[in-house]
Amino acid sequence: MQWYFVAVLLTILTSSQGILTTLSQSNGKYLYDYATVPFLAEVFKLLLSTVLLWRECRISPSTRVTTEWKSVRLYVIPSIIYLIHNNVQFATLTYVDTSTYQIMGNLKIVTTALLFRLFLRRRLSNLQWMAIVLLAVGTTTSQVKGCGEASCDSLFAAPIQGYMLGVLSACLSALAGVYTEFLMKKNNDSLYWQNVQLYTFGSIFNLARLVLDDYRGGYENGSWWQRLFNGYSITTWMVVLNLGSTGLLVSWLMKYADNIVKVYSTSLAMLLTMVLSVYLFNLKPTLQLLLGTIICMMSLHMYFAPPNMLVDLPTQVRAAPESLKEVAVERRTDS
Amino acid sequence: MQWYFVAVLLTILTSSQGILTTLSQSNGKYLYDYATVPFLAEVFKLLLSTVLLWRECRISPSTRVTTEWKSVRLYVIPSIIYLIHNNVQFATLTYVDTSTYQIMGNLKIVTTALLFRLFLRRRLSNLQWMAIVLLAVGTTTSQVKGCGEASCDSLFAAPIQGYMLGVLSACLSALAGVYTEFLMKKNNDSLYWQNVQLYTFGSIFNLARLVLDDYRGGYENGSWWQRLFNGYSITTWMVVLNLGSTGLLVSWLMKYADNIVKVYSTSLAMLLTMVLSVYLFNLKPTLQLLLGTIICMMSLHMYFAPPNMLVDLPTQVRAAPESLKEVAVERRTDS
Repeated sequence: MQWYFVAVLLTILTSSQGILTTLSQSNGKYLYDYATVPFLAEVFKLLLSTVLLWRECRISPSTRVTTEWKSVRLYVIPSIIYLIHNNVQFATLTYVDTSTYQIMGNLKIVTTALLFRLFLRRRLSNLQWMAIVLLAVGTTTSQVKGCGEASCDSLFAAPIQGYMLGVLSACLSALAGVYTEFLMKKNNDSLYWQNVQLYTFGSIFNLARLVLDDYRGGYENGSWWQRLFNGYSITTWMVVLNLGSTGLLVSWLMKYADNIVKVYSTSLAMLLTMVLSVYLFNLKPTLQLLLGTIICMMSLHMYFAPPNMLVDLPTQVRAAPESLKEVAVERRTDS
Repeated sequence: MQWYFVAVLLTILTSSQGILTTLSQSNGKYLYDYATVPFLAEVFKLLLSTVLLWRECRISPSTRVTTEWKSVRLYVIPSIIYLIHNNVQFATLTYVDTSTYQIMGNLKIVTTALLFRLFLRRRLSNLQWMAIVLLAVGTTTSQVKGCGEASCDSLFAAPIQGYMLGVLSACLSALAGVYTEFLMKKNNDSLYWQNVQLYTFGSIFNLARLVLDDYRGGYENGSWWQRLFNGYSITTWMVVLNLGSTGLLVSWLMKYADNIVKVYSTSLAMLLTMVLSVYLFNLKPTLQLLLGTIICMMSLHMYFAPPNMLVDLPTQVRAAPESLKEVAVERRTDS
């Protein structure tokens, strides 16, 4: 299985997520408790990973499974980061409106690349750095509010705390991604075993959130298990399965590809959702969506195309004779 | 004199042009006849070039001056293209509004590169093509209408003839530029002599336009020479001198650099004008201006930076072992 096949699948599923969620509403309202969806998705991922791990262990007895607590406990950290992130997100939204928050969310493309470089020590060429910045610029461009849209507050008018929390939020989101990649790649453990650990903690944290929300709400809507499948339609179940599947694909990418591939997948998914929405929900296509799509496509090509496809080699030879002499010497000793 | 010094000067002067023109108005109205400005600028360029040619001929008797009619007559062609272009522009504006026309004007960045490749047979790397498209996308992004702006017609709502004429207009504008570059580079004639020919025809065509406008208007405002310096302030004279100077710099770039350099200069000038306007005329900075500026800066770097600054050479070596082996062999025989 090639990584770009998984990346394309992730793009398609992530973009259907937005559309399915919209379709699962009834007259713009959720008939079910949306907070139960991520919990069920975690449980779905946990069950599927457990079954797959059991099968893998039966087929190949050499399946690597590290069960020391010293290793297992590391898998709780992504859940903790997401917990902090959710609270920072909540705090940010007290200072800025949701559309400003959405625009700032594009920062996580750049912070992911920075942490990818700093913590995972992965090198990116100058062109790849430019591609990353352009991806963030492209997704932001597609979200620029057109004329005629209702709310019209200036993006630069929120209090400074709002922007600082927005940056912190982008850093935490990037940290969770980069840390997960580190976890998945740090040894040759079975992907399914790694998933089982991740999703066990994920399920526990999501469950704790449901319980805590009930407690805070004074059990006004009853306990979470009473609401669990309330108002669920087939579309709601598809939202759960879809969210679970994208999670599994992200895990796979973290182990066999990297965070940047994931960032491209989800960013392009965002654009695909907007393009599909124009058709499905009969919205007006905007110039900024067209421009944003062109920018992101350019960025994709800049990042992943082999350098000799982008620049002419003869120019390269003229530009860097010194380094090429070294290459020539190396090749001479090779042959 | 390095070409980038001239390019930077052209950027600064072109961006002051917009600001000076605004400053030359009084309560948003021109107290002078704006049509006389391009005519006077042509005459200024013609006079200055004549003086410089005379001085050059005196200093170096080997100054090349081709005076055959077969060569001279070619210099009328840019004026003819601009004449057609002006009429197409007028026709386009009967179908689309000025802001749509302005947006479509960014197409000329791409058409210039296409004609540059087709007629002047200049090769661009894939990355340079992408940079050109991004430059057009970046300038367009900066012009996206924000929310709260008055006119709000969809950009995709004009009749098809409007878009076709817009494309034709972009092609004619590119053709004029590419043809001028061909003229300036086709022989070693003195730049000043080439300018004298260009601006002689330019002055004649601009004069003809003033005369024709008078005739069409039934001499309601008197003849053009009666209005020539009417209402001229010092700022108006600065507009004339500035327009003339940018013309001379463009000529220089056409001979010693190329159309792409000119396109970058004038596009960045457009952005610089918008940024300066925010300060000078106390406008709100928009997100799209910031995004457009980032995109154009990236494009500038992608187009002009040496390839080995953009991509890592080792990757290059792995990507294209065949061609590098040839280099290695060549270098071996060299030493």
